[in-house]
Amino acid sequence: MALTLLGLLAVVLAISRTTVADPDILTDFITPNTSSVGAYFFTYSGLSAFYNPNPKNFTVIKASMAEFPALNGQSVSYAVLQFPPASVNPPHTHPRSAELLLVMLGTLEVGFVDTKNAIFNKTLQVGDMFVFPKGLVHFQYNRNHNQSAIAISAFGSANAGLFSVPKSVFTTGIDDNVLAMSFKTDVATVQKIEIGLKN
Amino acid sequence: MALTLLGLLAVVLAISRTTVADPDILTDFITPNTSSVGAYFFTYSGLSAFYNPNPKNFTVIKASMAEFPALNGQSVSYAVLQFPPASVNPPHTHPRSAELLLVMLGTLEVGFVDTKNAIFNKTLQVGDMFVFPKGLVHFQYNRNHNQSAIAISAFGSANAGLFSVPKSVFTTGIDDNVLAMSFKTDVATVQKIEIGLKN
Amino acid sequence: MALTLLGLLAVVLAISRTTVADPDILTDFITPNTSSVGAYFFTYSGLSAFYNPNPKNFTVIKASMAEFPALNGQSVSYAVLQFPPASVNPPHTHPRSAELLLVMLGTLEVGFVDTKNAIFNKTLQVGDMFVFPKGLVHFQYNRNHNQSAIAISAFGSANAGLFSVPKSVFTTGIDDNVLAMSFKTDVATVQKIEIGLKN
Amino acid sequence: MALTLLGLLAVVLAISRTTVADPDILTDFITPNTSSVGAYFFTYSGLSAFYNPNPKNFTVIKASMAEFPALNGQSVSYAVLQFPPASVNPPHTHPRSAELLLVMLGTLEVGFVDTKNAIFNKTLQVGDMFVFPKGLVHFQYNRNHNQSAIAISAFGSANAGLFSVPKSVFTTGIDDNVLAMSFKTDVATVQKIEIGLKN
Amino acid sequence: MALTLLGLLAVVLAISRTTVADPDILTDFITPNTSSVGAYFFTYSGLSAFYNPNPKNFTVIKASMAEFPALNGQSVSYAVLQFPPASVNPPHTHPRSAELLLVMLGTLEVGFVDTKNAIFNKTLQVGDMFVFPKGLVHFQYNRNHNQSAIAISAFGSANAGLFSVPKSVFTTGIDDNVLAMSFKTDVATVQKIEIGLKN
Amino acid sequence: MALTLLGLLAVVLAISRTTVADPDILTDFITPNTSSVGAYFFTYSGLSAFYNPNPKNFTVIKASMAEFPALNGQSVSYAVLQFPPASVNPPHTHPRSAELLLVMLGTLEVGFVDTKNAIFNKTLQVGDMFVFPKGLVHFQYNRNHNQSAIAISAFGSANAGLFSVPKSVFTTGIDDNVLAMSFKTDVATVQKIEIGLKN
Repeated sequence: MALTLLGLLAVVLAISRTTVADPDILTDFITPNTSSVGAYFFTYSGLSAFYNPNPKNFTVIKASMAEFPALNGQSVSYAVLQFPPASVNPPHTHPRSAELLLVMLGTLEVGFVDTKNAIFNKTLQVGDMFVFPKGLVHFQYNRNHNQSAIAISAFGSANAGLFSVPKSVFTTGIDDNVLAMSFKTDVATVQKIEIGLKN
Repeated sequence: MALTLLGLLAVVLAISRTTVADPDILTDFITPNTSSVGAYFFTYSGLSAFYNPNPKNFTVIKASMAEFPALNGQSVSYAVLQFPPASVNPPHTHPRSAELLLVMLGTLEVGFVDTKNAIFNKTLQVGDMFVFPKGLVHFQYNRNHNQSAIAISAFGSANAGLFSVPKSVFTTGIDDNVLAMSFKTDVATVQKIEIGLKN
Repeated sequence: MALTLLGLLAVVLAISRTTVADPDILTDFITPNTSSVGAYFFTYSGLSAFYNPNPKNFTVIKASMAEFPALNGQSVSYAVLQFPPASVNPPHTHPRSAELLLVMLGTLEVGFVDTKNAIFNKTLQVGDMFVFPKGLVHFQYNRNHNQSAIAISAFGSANAGLFSVPKSVFTTGIDDNVLAMSFKTDVATVQKIEIGLKN
Repeated sequence: MALTLLGLLAVVLAISRTTVADPDILTDFITPNTSSVGAYFFTYSGLSAFYNPNPKNFTVIKASMAEFPALNGQSVSYAVLQFPPASVNPPHTHPRSAELLLVMLGTLEVGFVDTKNAIFNKTLQVGDMFVFPKGLVHFQYNRNHNQSAIAISAFGSANAGLFSVPKSVFTTGIDDNVLAMSFKTDVATVQKIEIGLKN
Repeated sequence: MALTLLGLLAVVLAISRTTVADPDILTDFITPNTSSVGAYFFTYSGLSAFYNPNPKNFTVIKASMAEFPALNGQSVSYAVLQFPPASVNPPHTHPRSAELLLVMLGTLEVGFVDTKNAIFNKTLQVGDMFVFPKGLVHFQYNRNHNQSAIAISAFGSANAGLFSVPKSVFTTGIDDNVLAMSFKTDVATVQKIEIGLKN
Repeated sequence: MALTLLGLLAVVLAISRTTVADPDILTDFITPNTSSVGAYFFTYSGLSAFYNPNPKNFTVIKASMAEFPALNGQSVSYAVLQFPPASVNPPHTHPRSAELLLVMLGTLEVGFVDTKNAIFNKTLQVGDMFVFPKGLVHFQYNRNHNQSAIAISAFGSANAGLFSVPKSVFTTGIDDNVLAMSFKTDVATVQKIEIGLKN
């Protein structure tokens, strides 16, 4: 029975998270159950180690609705991006939000492509802010071979979503012929990229 | 005069930035100027040749707000897709709408990838309909080497937008190093793809 | 000049007061239960017989959220309209969406009335498209006594809804006195119409 | 100059088509020009004579965005309805809002029809409130032959809009054949109703 | 039990499907359970005694979603305000709606402060209407020492919410030091106000 | 069991009534004029000195639509808050957004009051994050007499707005009698607070 109820609750949550009532929300906040919540519910410490000057790999630490449920209905979330020297955050989109990035350490080359295929490139210093408009493909690159970089990004959605171009296109099982024709190359090249990305 | 224009611009900006009041639009329709419009304004004939059973190349004919201004504010638009034998509509996203595709001639292999990198593939016959959810990467493929295919797609936005992965990522000038690192390949492979797509 | 500026201002106001929403959902798609779904969930074959050149009666085949649950949260749906010779789709409204109609067979006379009681009439040929703005009363008429007509309509809502004027007003039990006074006629005439519509 | 105006128009169009950013409006209120406004701007006295116990005809006094510009962007408006004895507010819809009616004098029979053609009828006394859901056809009837009735209605839109069934359908020039077929009656009956409504 | 769970699931789906994705709701109305409702569901008599010319204290009678569940999804609600002679409705905000007030008895001094700290003050007579823009702090004051005042207010949300400044700031347990520093006064003054408001 | 089901239903209702919009814009981004923009338009350096460990007064540095026009239509913005030792950010609301605060230096006591007048208090360390729900009154307090504190806050609106309780209520000219009655104190106390805040 408990399982059934949990299952039902899961359904409810799945459905409810996609519904949209008024332009505003109709309560102050959304709690995951009927018991009252304390101030701890509105607190999240998962970014406490965000200022790591020596990340081993490119790392994203998210503080979105999944990690921090109090964000549900509040239309805002964070992510911290840690770049080792000479690392990249591959071209990607967030289907449900713009991204507002602030550089906190090092320098970053950033860019996005609009739906007319124009590119907008910039090299950012500490304290610089850059907005990647809603739904557009963008990337960040730490060109420096000695210095790490750290950035914090805000999103105007509690669940911005992520679609990373290389992984989504080359590692999910899209037919190699489709990819070869799409990228106007041969199947061998497609498969070489696939193998590289799967390792 | 300049002052008046600046004043007007200020008004315009003030008003424009604030017009998000109701979920609905606040007039019946939007006309591009103050003179009244006739029924012709709500009519569009740009898709009249949509049923072309022998397209030379993969072709998209759009009926969106840009081509058909009466769609402004009505949250709906169409596109017709014509596939010669053995042709592909490369992986792409529409940043502002889902797509509801109906096959009118031939067969089509279609698919999309969700934000968890799961793929959803299907082969469609004439009369089959498929929904590509909002903002997700998807593609269509006419595998048949003899038969063309035609589909009509509806969008829940007057301007769904298009971000075609191969062109947007490989022909817009993103630094070759960024692409090589992102796709975990070498710069030579990146450049080979770039050259193919630019021709 | 002043007039031109005023005219421009009027345009601006008209446009500004009408911009429209298309909100996002917070997940990729909505499934009716917690188990995962396959590509079949996003496929619908209920319109496969849509191209029926000899319908017996005026027929609407819907592909909305009720018939095709994957449309939930995607803000788009279809309907196919089949008109025998000399048949009509009576005046009606869709409370939750505009309608974008494309003629696929025959000719159709279409029209809508705006909230200022102006009528917009047009005769459409195969390949012509017409937009019925959101919430306004509209109709289609196949005047030809020999040729059927078929149209496909897209909606910017997963559940556009339908309010057919004759049935809703004359067959639901609104007091005959109310109807007689409203239509400035006598109760006998009201009852004659009611009887005709109920058969 | 023409170029400048065109440029300005282009700006306006560009901005206006994009202003749907936040669920809320982005300023406190919207003023019709750049000069500042005083408290008078937020005051409206057009309903001061609303409590008229002896109206000659059924009368609607509106306080919507057109009469009271400060409502622009605030998503709320009023109307007062005055019913002489034995009068009716014919079946109608408001395409952009629900209506919340409060009886202030007399008694009113009210009703609406939902999209499944179910009718909801009620007789209201002074102090009773009734909600007509968004976009549905509804009417009010003062059956009493001696007593007037007055009601005040609130709308959740600054411009709810009105589509009155009898006038919109029978006095706007829809082809008599379309109407006869739609209402399953003869052209003579249609024309009798048209003449009655036009007087 | 299974039936009950199915019933509950149906409720959940019914509710969830109505709060969705499009600017409009996706059903005609929202009912609190799966059984059908009658016209009584859309009727509310809780304001029947609203015209009380001798209120003992300042009184607010609400007709919002909590009291009148049919308002759920309809984006509109009412409140009646009754002022004895020389009484005040303290500075407050409604986080989810503008307020459109109509004076029905007596005179009222009303005002609001915008986010630039400009004040807008007005003395209203019977029949005067005033709009308090969305989210801004406002108040009403019956200065007359002999005459009561009554007003009715409409909101563009089914649940406008209330944040009363004195109670929220001085009676909820905010640290006295925070309040003293915020109001640039001493702790003794803060405590005097707290004691007054708690009685 | 019945209780559990009721509890679950309550959760469902709570969730369903509260989910939020994040609408799309109809272009990629909004530029203030018709000439094309470069990457500089999407860059903002106004927060470059945000990490000031020795602020003289409590200071807010904003990066909203007014300072950074590219945010228009993107539904996101930042502010940096700098607290000298023993300083306070007085009780205030943002009428158009929730606030997501991250502590970057020192410790902060934060709190908000919901519309039921419940208070939620917490002491935050470096790396802790706290969400102040949309439209609710909140404050931050650096109790430490030796150490400054710095926080960065993200908003889900390009223009969140600010209504600071002390200034808005006591320095904008609301009638002293209204304030005395509202705060249940005497006019002398009101005037003392007014004088303190105006200096």
